[in-house]
Amino acid sequence: MADIGYFTETNSVDTVNARMGADVDPRLSQVMATLVKHLHDFAREVQLTQDEWETAIGFLTRTGQICTQERQEFILLSDTLGLSMLVDAINNRRPEGATENTVFGPFHVEGAPVREMGAQICLDGKGESCLFLGRVLDLEGKPIEGARIDVWSDNADGYYDVQQPDIQPKWNNRGVFVTGADGHYSFIGIKPVSYPIPDDGPVGDMLAHLGRHPYRPAHMHYMVRAEGYQKLVTHTFVGGDAYLESDAVFGVKSTLVAPFDRLEDGDTLWRSEFDFILVRPDQSR
Amino acid sequence: MADIGYFTETNSVDTVNARMGADVDPRLSQVMATLVKHLHDFAREVQLTQDEWETAIGFLTRTGQICTQERQEFILLSDTLGLSMLVDAINNRRPEGATENTVFGPFHVEGAPVREMGAQICLDGKGESCLFLGRVLDLEGKPIEGARIDVWSDNADGYYDVQQPDIQPKWNNRGVFVTGADGHYSFIGIKPVSYPIPDDGPVGDMLAHLGRHPYRPAHMHYMVRAEGYQKLVTHTFVGGDAYLESDAVFGVKSTLVAPFDRLEDGDTLWRSEFDFILVRPDQSR
Repeated sequence: MADIGYFTETNSVDTVNARMGADVDPRLSQVMATLVKHLHDFAREVQLTQDEWETAIGFLTRTGQICTQERQEFILLSDTLGLSMLVDAINNRRPEGATENTVFGPFHVEGAPVREMGAQICLDGKGESCLFLGRVLDLEGKPIEGARIDVWSDNADGYYDVQQPDIQPKWNNRGVFVTGADGHYSFIGIKPVSYPIPDDGPVGDMLAHLGRHPYRPAHMHYMVRAEGYQKLVTHTFVGGDAYLESDAVFGVKSTLVAPFDRLEDGDTLWRSEFDFILVRPDQSR
Repeated sequence: MADIGYFTETNSVDTVNARMGADVDPRLSQVMATLVKHLHDFAREVQLTQDEWETAIGFLTRTGQICTQERQEFILLSDTLGLSMLVDAINNRRPEGATENTVFGPFHVEGAPVREMGAQICLDGKGESCLFLGRVLDLEGKPIEGARIDVWSDNADGYYDVQQPDIQPKWNNRGVFVTGADGHYSFIGIKPVSYPIPDDGPVGDMLAHLGRHPYRPAHMHYMVRAEGYQKLVTHTFVGGDAYLESDAVFGVKSTLVAPFDRLEDGDTLWRSEFDFILVRPDQSR
Protein backbone atom coordinates (compact mmCIF):
# COMPACT_ATOMS: atom_id res chain seq x y z
CA MET A 1 0.00 0.00 0.00
CA ALA A 2 1.39 3.40 -0.91
CA ASP A 3 2.11 5.50 2.15
CA ILE A 4 1.51 8.86 0.56
CA GLY A 5 3.20 11.46 2.73
CA TYR A 6 4.33 8.93 5.30
CA PHE A 7 7.90 7.74 5.85
CA THR A 8 9.00 4.63 3.96
CA GLU A 9 12.33 2.90 3.50
CA THR A 10 12.63 4.35 0.01
CA ASN A 11 11.31 7.91 0.47
CA SER A 12 13.02 8.51 3.83
CA VAL A 13 15.35 11.33 2.79
CA ASP A 14 12.69 13.37 1.03
CA THR A 15 10.17 12.81 3.82
CA VAL A 16 12.53 14.04 6.53
CA ASN A 17 13.79 17.00 4.53
CA ALA A 18 10.29 18.03 3.46
CA ARG A 19 9.53 18.62 7.13
CA MET A 20 11.84 21.65 7.31
CA GLY A 21 10.07 24.95 7.79
CA ALA A 22 9.85 27.52 5.00
CA ASP A 23 11.70 30.24 6.89
CA VAL A 24 14.76 28.19 7.81
CA ASP A 25 18.13 29.77 7.14
CA PRO A 26 19.03 28.60 3.60
CA ARG A 27 22.55 27.50 4.52
CA LEU A 28 21.31 25.51 7.55
CA SER A 29 18.66 23.96 5.34
CA GLN A 30 21.28 22.93 2.77
CA VAL A 31 23.68 21.51 5.36
CA MET A 32 20.99 19.54 7.21
CA ALA A 33 19.32 18.19 4.07
CA THR A 34 22.69 16.95 2.80
CA LEU A 35 23.50 15.47 6.20
CA VAL A 36 20.21 13.56 6.27
CA LYS A 37 20.82 12.30 2.73
CA HIS A 38 24.26 10.92 3.58
CA LEU A 39 23.16 9.56 6.96
CA HIS A 40 20.30 7.62 5.38
CA ASP A 41 22.38 6.54 2.39
CA PHE A 42 24.99 5.21 4.80
CA ALA A 43 22.42 3.17 6.75
CA ARG A 44 20.87 1.85 3.54
CA GLU A 45 24.21 1.04 1.94
CA VAL A 46 25.43 -1.09 4.85
CA GLN A 47 21.90 -2.29 5.78
CA LEU A 48 22.59 -1.16 9.32
CA THR A 49 21.25 -3.61 11.89
CA GLN A 50 19.35 -2.68 15.04
CA ASP A 51 22.26 -3.93 17.18
CA GLU A 52 24.76 -1.83 15.23
CA TRP A 53 22.52 1.23 15.64
CA GLU A 54 22.45 0.61 19.41
CA THR A 55 26.23 0.26 19.47
CA ALA A 56 26.52 3.60 17.66
CA ILE A 57 24.12 5.33 20.06
CA GLY A 58 26.13 4.00 23.02
CA PHE A 59 29.43 5.05 21.45
CA LEU A 60 28.26 8.61 20.75
CA THR A 61 26.81 8.89 24.24
CA ARG A 62 30.08 7.81 25.88
CA THR A 63 32.00 10.14 23.58
CA GLY A 64 29.95 13.10 24.79
CA GLN A 65 30.05 12.09 28.41
CA ILE A 66 33.85 11.89 28.63
CA CYS A 67 34.17 15.48 27.36
CA THR A 68 35.31 18.06 29.92
CA GLN A 69 36.83 21.53 29.82
CA GLU A 70 40.20 19.81 29.29
CA ARG A 71 39.16 16.94 27.03
CA GLN A 72 37.27 17.08 23.73
CA GLU A 73 36.58 13.51 22.60
CA PHE A 74 34.37 14.57 19.66
CA ILE A 75 37.29 16.54 18.20
CA LEU A 76 39.43 13.40 18.62
CA LEU A 77 36.72 11.45 16.79
CA SER A 78 36.63 14.01 13.98
CA ASP A 79 40.44 14.00 13.84
CA THR A 80 40.81 10.22 13.71
CA LEU A 81 38.13 9.86 11.01
CA GLY A 82 39.96 12.44 8.88
CA LEU A 83 37.08 14.92 9.04
CA SER A 84 39.10 17.65 10.75
CA MET A 85 41.81 17.50 8.09
CA LEU A 86 39.22 17.49 5.31
CA VAL A 87 37.46 20.59 6.69
CA ASP A 88 40.87 22.22 7.11
CA ALA A 89 41.74 21.40 3.49
CA ILE A 90 38.42 22.64 2.12
CA ASN A 91 38.80 25.95 3.91
CA ASN A 92 42.49 26.55 3.22
CA ARG A 93 43.16 25.95 -0.44
CA ARG A 94 46.37 27.75 -1.35
CA PRO A 95 48.44 28.25 -4.47
CA GLU A 96 51.63 26.26 -5.15
CA GLY A 97 54.48 27.62 -3.08
CA ALA A 98 52.37 28.81 -0.12
CA THR A 99 52.82 26.99 3.17
CA GLU A 100 50.03 24.46 3.68
CA ASN A 101 47.70 24.36 6.65
CA THR A 102 47.19 21.39 8.91
CA VAL A 103 45.00 20.60 11.93
CA PHE A 104 44.93 23.12 14.76
CA GLY A 105 44.65 20.46 17.46
CA PRO A 106 43.23 20.93 20.95
CA PHE A 107 46.37 22.14 22.75
CA HIS A 108 46.80 25.76 21.64
CA VAL A 109 46.44 28.36 24.39
CA GLU A 110 45.80 31.99 23.54
CA GLY A 111 47.94 34.56 25.35
CA ALA A 112 51.37 32.92 25.42
CA PRO A 113 54.17 35.38 26.27
CA VAL A 114 55.76 37.37 23.45
CA ARG A 115 59.49 36.62 23.58
CA GLU A 116 62.64 38.12 22.09
CA MET A 117 63.89 36.54 18.88
CA GLY A 118 66.20 33.66 19.73
CA ALA A 119 64.67 33.11 23.18
CA GLN A 120 64.34 29.75 24.92
CA ILE A 121 60.78 28.39 25.21
CA CYS A 122 61.59 25.09 26.94
CA LEU A 123 61.18 25.83 30.64
CA ASP A 124 61.42 22.36 32.19
CA GLY A 125 64.99 21.62 31.09
CA LYS A 126 63.95 18.33 29.50
CA GLY A 127 64.60 17.14 25.96
CA GLU A 128 67.06 17.69 23.17
CA SER A 129 67.59 21.39 22.55
CA CYS A 130 66.77 22.60 19.04
CA LEU A 131 67.22 25.90 17.22
CA PHE A 132 64.21 26.76 15.08
CA LEU A 133 64.68 29.48 12.51
CA GLY A 134 63.53 30.77 9.15
CA ARG A 135 61.63 33.58 7.56
CA VAL A 136 58.06 34.70 7.03
CA LEU A 137 57.65 35.62 3.38
CA ASP A 138 54.92 36.45 0.91
CA LEU A 139 54.36 34.44 -2.26
CA GLU A 140 56.73 36.74 -4.13
CA GLY A 141 59.52 36.08 -1.62
CA LYS A 142 59.32 39.46 0.13
CA PRO A 143 59.86 39.40 3.94
CA ILE A 144 56.76 40.12 6.02
CA GLU A 145 57.33 42.51 8.92
CA GLY A 146 55.21 42.28 12.05
CA ALA A 147 54.12 38.68 11.57
CA ARG A 148 53.16 37.07 14.91
CA ILE A 149 54.45 33.51 15.13
CA ASP A 150 52.70 31.55 17.86
CA VAL A 151 54.55 28.27 18.57
CA TRP A 152 53.77 25.30 20.82
CA SER A 153 54.94 21.73 21.24
CA ASP A 154 54.86 18.82 23.65
CA ASN A 155 57.70 18.34 26.13
CA ALA A 156 60.25 15.52 26.06
CA ASP A 157 57.72 13.18 27.73
CA GLY A 158 55.14 13.79 24.98
CA TYR A 159 52.78 16.01 26.97
CA TYR A 160 51.71 19.61 26.45
CA ASP A 161 51.91 21.86 29.51
CA VAL A 162 48.10 22.05 29.73
CA GLN A 163 47.96 18.27 30.06
CA GLN A 164 50.24 18.40 33.11
CA PRO A 165 49.46 21.70 34.84
CA ASP A 166 50.80 20.39 38.17
CA ILE A 167 54.09 19.15 36.74
CA GLN A 168 55.09 21.47 33.89
CA PRO A 169 55.87 25.19 34.22
CA LYS A 170 53.16 27.42 32.76
CA TRP A 171 53.84 28.27 29.08
CA ASN A 172 56.38 25.44 28.85
CA ASN A 173 57.37 25.02 25.18
CA ARG A 174 55.19 27.96 24.08
CA GLY A 175 55.89 31.46 22.90
CA VAL A 176 55.01 34.23 20.48
CA PHE A 177 57.61 35.87 18.23
CA VAL A 178 57.12 38.95 16.10
CA THR A 179 59.18 39.44 12.94
CA GLY A 180 61.13 42.57 12.13
CA ALA A 181 61.70 44.09 8.69
CA ASP A 182 63.82 41.13 7.55
CA GLY A 183 61.01 38.63 8.24
CA HIS A 184 63.38 36.40 10.21
CA TYR A 185 62.40 34.37 13.24
CA SER A 186 64.36 32.13 15.58
CA PHE A 187 63.88 30.49 18.95
CA ILE A 188 65.23 27.62 21.02
CA GLY A 189 62.89 24.78 21.88
CA ILE A 190 63.27 21.03 21.94
CA LYS A 191 63.14 18.53 19.12
CA PRO A 192 59.52 17.40 19.61
CA VAL A 193 58.68 13.77 20.27
CA SER A 194 55.88 11.59 18.93
CA TYR A 195 53.01 10.90 21.34
CA PRO A 196 49.69 9.08 21.48
CA ILE A 197 46.46 11.07 21.38
CA PRO A 198 44.41 10.38 24.55
CA ASP A 199 43.38 6.78 23.94
CA ASP A 200 41.74 5.73 27.20
CA GLY A 201 38.24 6.68 26.00
CA PRO A 202 35.75 5.68 23.28
CA VAL A 203 37.97 6.97 20.45
CA GLY A 204 40.91 4.92 21.73
CA ASP A 205 38.61 1.88 21.83
CA MET A 206 37.55 2.59 18.26
CA LEU A 207 41.14 2.85 17.05
CA ALA A 208 41.96 -0.45 18.76
CA HIS A 209 39.00 -2.17 17.06
CA LEU A 210 40.14 -0.72 13.73
CA GLY A 211 43.68 -2.02 14.21
CA ARG A 212 45.08 1.52 14.32
CA HIS A 213 47.68 2.98 16.70
CA PRO A 214 47.01 6.33 18.41
CA TYR A 215 50.36 8.01 17.70
CA ARG A 216 51.11 11.33 16.10
CA PRO A 217 54.55 11.87 14.54
CA ALA A 218 56.66 14.48 16.33
CA HIS A 219 55.79 18.03 15.28
CA MET A 220 56.09 21.70 16.24
CA HIS A 221 52.89 23.74 16.05
CA TYR A 222 52.78 27.14 14.39
CA MET A 223 50.10 29.75 13.97
CA VAL A 224 51.35 32.66 11.87
CA ARG A 225 49.25 35.79 11.59
CA ALA A 226 50.13 38.98 9.70
CA GLU A 227 48.01 41.96 8.73
CA GLY A 228 46.71 41.56 5.19
CA TYR A 229 47.52 37.82 4.98
CA GLN A 230 45.51 34.66 5.51
CA LYS A 231 46.10 33.09 8.91
CA LEU A 232 48.39 30.05 8.68
CA VAL A 233 47.82 27.17 11.11
CA THR A 234 50.32 24.41 10.59
CA HIS A 235 52.99 22.10 12.00
CA THR A 236 56.49 21.23 10.93
CA PHE A 237 57.07 17.51 11.24
CA VAL A 238 60.34 15.94 12.29
CA GLY A 239 61.78 14.25 9.19
CA GLY A 240 62.41 10.55 9.73
CA ASP A 241 59.80 10.12 12.47
CA ALA A 242 58.49 6.54 12.63
CA TYR A 243 54.85 7.70 12.48
CA LEU A 244 55.10 10.09 9.53
CA GLU A 245 53.24 7.64 7.28
CA SER A 246 50.59 6.78 9.86
CA ASP A 247 49.67 9.96 11.79
CA ALA A 248 46.57 9.04 13.83
CA VAL A 249 44.91 12.30 12.73
CA PHE A 250 46.21 12.41 9.12
CA GLY A 251 47.92 15.78 9.61
CA VAL A 252 51.12 15.13 7.65
CA LYS A 253 51.76 16.80 4.30
CA SER A 254 55.02 16.21 2.46
CA THR A 255 55.71 19.96 2.26
CA LEU A 256 55.55 20.22 6.06
CA VAL A 257 58.23 17.63 6.81
CA ALA A 258 61.17 19.76 7.97
CA PRO A 259 64.86 19.02 8.23
CA PHE A 260 66.19 18.50 11.75
CA ASP A 261 69.98 18.68 11.43
CA ARG A 262 72.25 17.39 14.18
CA LEU A 263 74.73 20.06 15.36
CA GLU A 264 78.24 19.08 16.29
CA ASP A 265 79.03 21.37 19.19
CA GLY A 266 77.41 23.59 21.80
CA ASP A 267 74.36 23.01 24.03
CA THR A 268 71.95 23.08 21.16
CA LEU A 269 71.80 19.63 19.59
CA TRP A 270 69.52 20.23 16.61
CA ARG A 271 68.73 22.88 14.02
CA SER A 272 65.49 23.09 12.02
CA GLU A 273 65.06 25.74 9.38
CA PHE A 274 61.68 26.38 7.79
CA ASP A 275 60.23 29.35 5.90
CA PHE A 276 56.55 30.22 6.16
CA ILE A 277 55.02 31.55 2.96
CA LEU A 278 51.78 33.45 3.56
CA VAL A 279 49.13 34.36 1.02
CA ARG A 280 46.84 37.32 0.77
CA PRO A 281 43.13 36.44 0.81
CA ASP A 282 42.86 37.18 -2.93
CA GLN A 283 45.58 34.60 -3.63
CA SER A 284 43.79 31.64 -2.07
CA ARG A 285 41.75 29.37 -4.28
CA MET B 1 53.15 18.45 -5.44
CA ALA B 2 51.72 14.95 -5.16
CA ASP B 3 51.37 13.84 -1.56
CA ILE B 4 51.82 10.15 -2.21
CA GLY B 5 50.43 8.34 0.78
CA TYR B 6 49.51 11.53 2.61
CA PHE B 7 46.01 12.88 3.14
CA THR B 8 44.67 15.33 0.57
CA GLU B 9 41.30 16.92 -0.04
CA THR B 10 40.66 14.54 -2.92
CA ASN B 11 42.08 11.24 -1.58
CA SER B 12 40.73 11.67 1.95
CA VAL B 13 38.35 8.70 2.02
CA ASP B 14 40.85 6.20 0.64
CA THR B 15 43.63 7.49 2.90
CA VAL B 16 41.57 7.13 6.06
CA ASN B 17 40.17 3.74 5.12
CA ALA B 18 43.56 2.38 4.05
CA ARG B 19 44.70 2.87 7.63
CA MET B 20 42.49 0.06 8.91
CA GLY B 21 44.33 -2.99 10.13
CA ALA B 22 44.29 -6.26 8.18
CA ASP B 23 42.69 -8.30 10.95
CA VAL B 24 39.70 -6.03 11.53
CA ASP B 25 36.30 -7.68 11.69
CA PRO B 26 35.03 -7.56 8.07
CA ARG B 27 31.61 -6.18 8.99
CA LEU B 28 33.13 -3.43 11.18
CA SER B 29 35.51 -2.62 8.37
CA GLN B 30 32.64 -2.33 5.89
CA VAL B 31 30.49 -0.19 8.18
CA MET B 32 33.32 2.18 9.12
CA ALA B 33 34.64 2.54 5.57
CA THR B 34 31.14 3.42 4.35
CA LEU B 35 30.66 5.83 7.25
CA VAL B 36 33.91 7.61 6.43
CA LYS B 37 32.92 7.83 2.77
CA HIS B 38 29.57 9.45 3.53
CA LEU B 39 30.97 11.71 6.26
CA HIS B 40 33.64 13.06 3.90
CA ASP B 41 31.26 13.28 0.94
CA PHE B 42 28.88 15.28 3.13
CA ALA B 43 31.61 17.75 4.15
CA ARG B 44 32.80 18.07 0.56
CA GLU B 45 29.32 18.44 -0.87
CA VAL B 46 28.36 21.32 1.43
CA GLN B 47 31.94 22.67 1.61
CA LEU B 48 31.64 22.64 5.37
CA THR B 49 33.21 25.71 7.00
CA GLN B 50 35.43 25.68 10.07
CA ASP B 51 32.72 27.54 12.04
CA GLU B 52 30.07 25.01 11.04
CA TRP B 53 32.37 22.16 12.08
CA GLU B 54 32.82 23.83 15.48
CA THR B 55 29.06 24.23 15.82
CA ALA B 56 28.63 20.52 15.07
CA ILE B 57 31.29 19.52 17.62
CA GLY B 58 29.57 21.67 20.26
CA PHE B 59 26.15 20.26 19.40
CA LEU B 60 27.28 16.63 19.63
CA THR B 61 29.08 17.33 22.90
CA ARG B 62 25.97 18.89 24.48
CA THR B 63 23.87 16.03 23.13
CA GLY B 64 26.08 13.52 24.92
CA GLN B 65 26.32 15.51 28.10
CA ILE B 66 22.56 15.83 28.63
CA CYS B 67 22.18 12.03 28.47
CA THR B 68 21.35 10.30 31.76
CA GLN B 69 19.88 6.98 32.81
CA GLU B 70 16.45 8.50 32.13
CA ARG B 71 17.21 10.61 29.08
CA GLN B 72 18.75 9.50 25.79
CA GLU B 73 19.27 12.57 23.62
CA PHE B 74 21.19 10.69 20.90
CA ILE B 75 18.15 8.44 20.36
CA LEU B 76 16.04 11.59 20.08
CA LEU B 77 18.51 12.90 17.51
CA SER B 78 18.36 9.64 15.54
CA ASP B 79 14.55 9.67 15.80
CA THR B 80 14.12 13.25 14.63
CA LEU B 81 16.49 12.78 11.69
CA GLY B 82 14.51 9.74 10.57
CA LEU B 83 17.42 7.35 11.14
CA SER B 84 15.62 5.26 13.76
CA MET B 85 12.67 4.67 11.46
CA LEU B 86 14.96 3.85 8.55
CA VAL B 87 16.89 1.26 10.57
CA ASP B 88 13.56 -0.15 11.77
CA ALA B 89 12.33 -0.37 8.19
CA ILE B 90 15.51 -2.01 6.89
CA ASN B 91 15.36 -4.66 9.59
CA ASN B 92 11.64 -5.39 9.47
CA ARG B 93 10.57 -5.87 5.88
CA ARG B 94 7.32 -7.82 5.86
CA PRO B 95 4.96 -9.15 3.25
CA GLU B 96 1.70 -7.42 2.37
CA GLY B 97 -0.91 -8.08 5.04
CA ALA B 98 1.51 -8.39 7.96
CA THR B 99 1.38 -5.68 10.62
CA GLU B 100 4.15 -3.16 10.07
CA ASN B 101 6.78 -2.23 12.64
CA THR B 102 7.46 1.26 13.88
CA VAL B 103 9.94 2.85 16.29
CA PHE B 104 10.34 1.25 19.70
CA GLY B 105 10.86 4.58 21.48
CA PRO B 106 12.62 5.10 24.80
CA PHE B 107 9.71 4.49 27.17
CA HIS B 108 9.24 0.73 27.19
CA VAL B 109 9.92 -0.97 30.53
CA GLU B 110 10.54 -4.70 30.70
CA GLY B 111 8.64 -6.60 33.40
CA ALA B 112 5.21 -4.98 33.35
CA PRO B 113 2.56 -7.06 35.15
CA VAL B 114 0.72 -9.75 33.21
CA ARG B 115 -2.99 -8.95 33.50
CA GLU B 116 -6.24 -10.77 32.85
CA MET B 117 -7.84 -10.17 29.48
CA GLY B 118 -10.10 -7.13 29.70
CA ALA B 119 -8.25 -5.62 32.67
CA GLN B 120 -7.80 -1.93 33.33
CA ILE B 121 -4.26 -0.58 32.82
CA CYS B 122 -4.95 3.07 33.61
CA LEU B 123 -4.13 3.43 37.30
CA ASP B 124 -4.27 7.20 37.80
CA GLY B 125 -7.93 7.64 36.89
CA LYS B 126 -7.13 10.32 34.33
CA GLY B 127 -8.15 10.47 30.70
CA GLU B 128 -10.90 9.16 28.45
CA SER B 129 -11.41 5.45 28.98
CA CYS B 130 -10.95 3.28 25.91
CA LEU B 131 -11.51 -0.41 25.17
CA PHE B 132 -8.71 -1.89 23.08
CA LEU B 133 -9.40 -5.23 21.46
CA GLY B 134 -8.60 -7.44 18.53
CA ARG B 135 -6.83 -10.63 17.60
CA VAL B 136 -3.31 -11.90 17.05
CA LEU B 137 -3.25 -13.84 13.79
CA ASP B 138 -0.79 -15.39 11.41
CA LEU B 139 -0.59 -14.38 7.76
CA GLU B 140 -3.10 -17.10 6.88
CA GLY B 141 -5.64 -15.70 9.36
CA LYS B 142 -5.17 -18.42 11.98
CA PRO B 143 -5.33 -17.27 15.65
CA ILE B 144 -2.02 -17.39 17.53
CA GLU B 145 -2.23 -18.84 21.02
CA GLY B 146 0.18 -17.74 23.74
CA ALA B 147 1.15 -14.43 22.11
CA ARG B 148 2.42 -11.94 24.73
CA ILE B 149 1.09 -8.47 24.04
CA ASP B 150 3.07 -5.82 25.91
CA VAL B 151 1.26 -2.45 25.81
CA TRP B 152 2.21 1.02 27.04
CA SER B 153 1.01 4.57 26.53
CA ASP B 154 1.31 8.05 27.98
CA ASN B 155 -1.27 9.26 30.49
CA ALA B 156 -3.84 11.97 29.86
CA ASP B 157 -1.22 14.66 30.53
CA GLY B 158 1.07 13.26 27.82
CA TYR B 159 3.68 11.68 30.11
CA TYR B 160 4.74 8.06 30.54
CA ASP B 161 4.90 6.79 34.11
CA VAL B 162 8.71 6.62 34.00
CA GLN B 163 8.82 10.33 33.20
CA GLN B 164 6.86 11.11 36.37
CA PRO B 165 7.88 8.44 38.89
CA ASP B 166 6.86 10.67 41.81
CA ILE B 167 3.42 11.50 40.42
CA GLN B 168 2.17 8.47 38.51
CA PRO B 169 1.51 5.01 39.96
CA LYS B 170 4.10 2.42 38.92
CA TRP B 171 3.05 0.55 35.75
CA ASN B 172 0.44 3.22 34.97
CA ASN B 173 -0.91 2.59 31.47
CA ARG B 174 1.18 -0.55 31.05
CA GLY B 175 0.44 -4.24 31.00
CA VAL B 176 1.10 -7.60 29.41
CA PHE B 177 -1.69 -9.79 28.01
CA VAL B 178 -1.36 -13.36 26.82
CA THR B 179 -3.72 -14.70 24.16
CA GLY B 180 -5.70 -17.91 24.48
CA ALA B 181 -6.61 -20.35 21.73
CA ASP B 182 -8.89 -17.83 20.02
CA GLY B 183 -6.05 -15.28 19.65
CA HIS B 184 -8.25 -12.55 21.12
CA TYR B 185 -6.99 -9.74 23.33
CA SER B 186 -8.71 -6.88 25.11
CA PHE B 187 -7.93 -4.35 27.82
CA ILE B 188 -9.10 -0.99 29.08
CA GLY B 189 -6.74 1.96 28.84
CA ILE B 190 -7.19 5.56 27.85
CA LYS B 191 -7.40 7.15 24.45
CA PRO B 192 -3.77 8.29 24.21
CA VAL B 193 -2.93 11.95 23.70
CA SER B 194 -0.32 13.62 21.52
CA TYR B 195 2.76 14.95 23.31
CA PRO B 196 6.05 16.69 22.57
CA ILE B 197 9.27 14.70 22.74
CA PRO B 198 11.62 16.25 25.35
CA ASP B 199 12.53 19.51 23.65
CA ASP B 200 14.48 21.44 26.30
CA GLY B 201 17.85 20.12 25.06
CA PRO B 202 20.04 20.25 21.94
CA VAL B 203 17.57 18.26 19.83
CA GLY B 204 14.75 20.64 20.76
CA ASP B 205 17.00 23.54 19.76
CA MET B 206 17.70 21.81 16.47
CA LEU B 207 14.01 21.27 15.75
CA ALA B 208 13.32 24.94 16.50
CA HIS B 209 16.06 26.05 14.10
CA LEU B 210 14.61 23.73 11.45
CA GLY B 211 11.12 25.16 11.89
CA ARG B 212 9.80 21.82 13.16
CA HIS B 213 7.47 21.13 16.09
CA PRO B 214 8.37 18.40 18.62
CA TYR B 215 4.98 16.64 18.76
CA ARG B 216 4.11 13.01 18.25
CA PRO B 217 0.57 12.08 17.28
CA ALA B 218 -1.32 10.12 19.95
CA HIS B 219 -0.50 6.42 19.89
CA MET B 220 -0.64 3.17 21.86
CA HIS B 221 2.58 1.13 21.95
CA TYR B 222 2.57 -2.60 21.34
CA MET B 223 5.23 -5.25 21.40
CA VAL B 224 3.83 -8.64 20.37
CA ARG B 225 5.94 -11.76 20.77
CA ALA B 226 4.94 -15.34 20.00
CA GLU B 227 7.01 -18.47 19.72
CA GLY B 228 7.91 -19.13 16.10
CA TYR B 229 7.00 -15.62 14.91
CA GLN B 230 8.99 -12.47 14.30
CA LYS B 231 8.74 -9.95 17.12
CA LEU B 232 6.41 -7.09 16.27
CA VAL B 233 7.17 -3.64 17.69
CA THR B 234 4.57 -1.12 16.67
CA HIS B 235 2.01 1.53 17.62
CA THR B 236 -1.57 2.11 16.73
CA PHE B 237 -2.19 5.78 16.01
CA VAL B 238 -5.36 7.62 16.89
CA GLY B 239 -7.09 8.37 13.62
CA GLY B 240 -7.75 12.07 13.11
CA ASP B 241 -4.89 13.24 15.33
CA ALA B 242 -3.62 16.69 14.33
CA TYR B 243 -0.01 15.50 14.16
CA LEU B 244 -0.52 12.35 12.06
CA GLU B 245 1.06 14.03 9.02
CA SER B 246 3.95 15.56 10.95
CA ASP B 247 5.10 13.07 13.61
CA ALA B 248 8.38 14.49 14.97
CA VAL B 249 9.97 11.04 14.69
CA PHE B 250 8.31 9.91 11.41
CA GLY B 251 6.72 6.83 13.02
CA VAL B 252 3.32 6.93 11.29
CA LYS B 253 2.37 4.37 8.65
CA SER B 254 -1.08 4.45 7.07
CA THR B 255 -1.71 0.82 8.02
CA LEU B 256 -1.15 1.67 11.70
CA VAL B 257 -3.80 4.39 11.94
CA ALA B 258 -6.56 2.74 13.96
CA PRO B 259 -10.22 3.54 14.38
CA PHE B 260 -11.21 5.07 17.72
CA ASP B 261 -14.99 4.85 17.87
CA ARG B 262 -16.99 6.88 20.35
CA LEU B 263 -19.27 4.72 22.49
CA GLU B 264 -22.72 5.93 23.45
CA ASP B 265 -23.14 4.57 26.94
CA GLY B 266 -21.23 3.25 29.92
CA ASP B 267 -17.99 4.40 31.57
CA THR B 268 -15.88 3.47 28.59
CA LEU B 269 -15.93 6.32 26.09
CA TRP B 270 -13.98 4.85 23.20
CA ARG B 271 -13.41 1.56 21.40
CA SER B 272 -10.39 0.75 19.24
CA GLU B 273 -10.18 -2.56 17.43
CA PHE B 274 -6.98 -3.66 15.75
CA ASP B 275 -5.67 -7.07 14.67
CA PHE B 276 -1.99 -7.89 14.79
CA ILE B 277 -0.76 -10.10 11.96
CA LEU B 278 2.55 -11.80 12.75
CA VAL B 279 4.94 -13.43 10.31
CA ARG B 280 7.22 -16.37 10.69
CA PRO B 281 10.92 -15.56 10.09
CA ASP B 282 10.83 -17.34 6.71
CA GLN B 283 7.99 -15.05 5.60
CA SER B 284 9.89 -11.79 6.04
CA ARG B 285 11.66 -10.25 3.08
